[in-house]
Amino acid sequence: MTEQTARIAIVLARPSHPGNIGAAARAMKTMGFADLRLVAPRRFPHPEADALASGAVDVLERARVYPSLAEALGDVSLAVGFSARSRELSHAAVALREAAPRIHEGALAAGAALVFGNETFGLTNEELGRCQMLCSIPASPEYASLNLAAAVQVACYELSLAASMPGSAKARDRQAATVEDIEALFAHWEDTMVESGFHDPAEPKRLMERMRRLFARTRLEREEVRFLRGMLAAYEARMKR
Amino acid sequence: MTEQTARIAIVLARPSHPGNIGAAARAMKTMGFADLRLVAPRRFPHPEADALASGAVDVLERARVYPSLAEALGDVSLAVGFSARSRELSHAAVALREAAPRIHEGALAAGAALVFGNETFGLTNEELGRCQMLCSIPASPEYASLNLAAAVQVACYELSLAASMPGSAKARDRQAATVEDIEALFAHWEDTMVESGFHDPAEPKRLMERMRRLFARTRLEREEVRFLRGMLAAYEARMKR
Repeated sequence: MTEQTARIAIVLARPSHPGNIGAAARAMKTMGFADLRLVAPRRFPHPEADALASGAVDVLERARVYPSLAEALGDVSLAVGFSARSRELSHAAVALREAAPRIHEGALAAGAALVFGNETFGLTNEELGRCQMLCSIPASPEYASLNLAAAVQVACYELSLAASMPGSAKARDRQAATVEDIEALFAHWEDTMVESGFHDPAEPKRLMERMRRLFARTRLEREEVRFLRGMLAAYEARMKR
Repeated sequence: MTEQTARIAIVLARPSHPGNIGAAARAMKTMGFADLRLVAPRRFPHPEADALASGAVDVLERARVYPSLAEALGDVSLAVGFSARSRELSHAAVALREAAPRIHEGALAAGAALVFGNETFGLTNEELGRCQMLCSIPASPEYASLNLAAAVQVACYELSLAASMPGSAKARDRQAATVEDIEALFAHWEDTMVESGFHDPAEPKRLMERMRRLFARTRLEREEVRFLRGMLAAYEARMKR
């Protein structure tokens, strides 16, 4: 369990089937999560939950049961509601992979929770109102209905990978570059390419498009933009000499 | 279903529990996969499989049953065996996220299959011998035992996202840069930074380390390395003039 996974609770709101609670506990443990919270489960504890938890019965034994979602989220600053919508329909929700670094930031700052609704009805509007972020697992528009424990498995997988990414422990110290920073970098870069004769703006050959595509994949940090612009300024000074 | 997901089969080798077959079918369909192949299932068809498939009974109905893995892989060029090992132990296996683009390449070229072993025993050595790649889902060293359908869910999720990545449809036309290409790029870049006076090799200030960290995140393509080196050559020529 990393510092981050220890600070993320999994909350199941009004689960109907004890088997799903057990399977969710197993899914959590395989990815290093341990804090399971149940809001008004229909049946719990239950032998079927134990059976499906397999080697994760300890997670069930330590699970806490609450009468309402508000009480389950008492010590949590960032509650993330999961909605099962198809790729086309979920506009308001942030896709899981995109949300993962933000969830970790929240977890490190003051604890986070992933909130999953009832198997049939999902999260109610009142429950969604308790969440600060809405997250979706991209699914097929033809059939987007993940099993509850399967959704917990995918969410925990994604967050466990995001926690183990190189440098994520230092994520707090690193600031992502803003769109403004990045546009200024591209403008500066284009100038130096023109200055060097490599790039003729009258015949662009899609050079800048290529640069954009390349750097779109990196998520540049502020510090990196500063560094690259320092380098470009040195080239420029030397070329103009 | 994308062109890629249509060309990836999910193969369950000797599954013991019909419920797992149904849950795997559901997991597949939520991520846009449809080709399910069963090797010597203990019980199939079975009402429990239908119950757990939920809205994915059509995947079960179209599933094909084979007496051996070799026969199930008859029309497949890239078979990927999944092993459930903890993060620490799986050296030979490629982590799922890293494997995903390679699996798509194989799928587009001549069809691929993801092969999952029996719930208790995993894949036998003989079955592993039929696979061209070994893949693992990174899991907790304390408890790495994902349920069979949960493993199928995570694998299909990762491959479905990789298929929808911008530009992945053109993946066939794009060649990843080799380590050699990239080292030559760094050497060239370092030369131009020295030439410009930005970089003093006697006092390196970790400049090259930063460049490496930045570009390690992009997975440079061969074409991009060529383009960047062309740019550096133009800077160099202009600086030396």
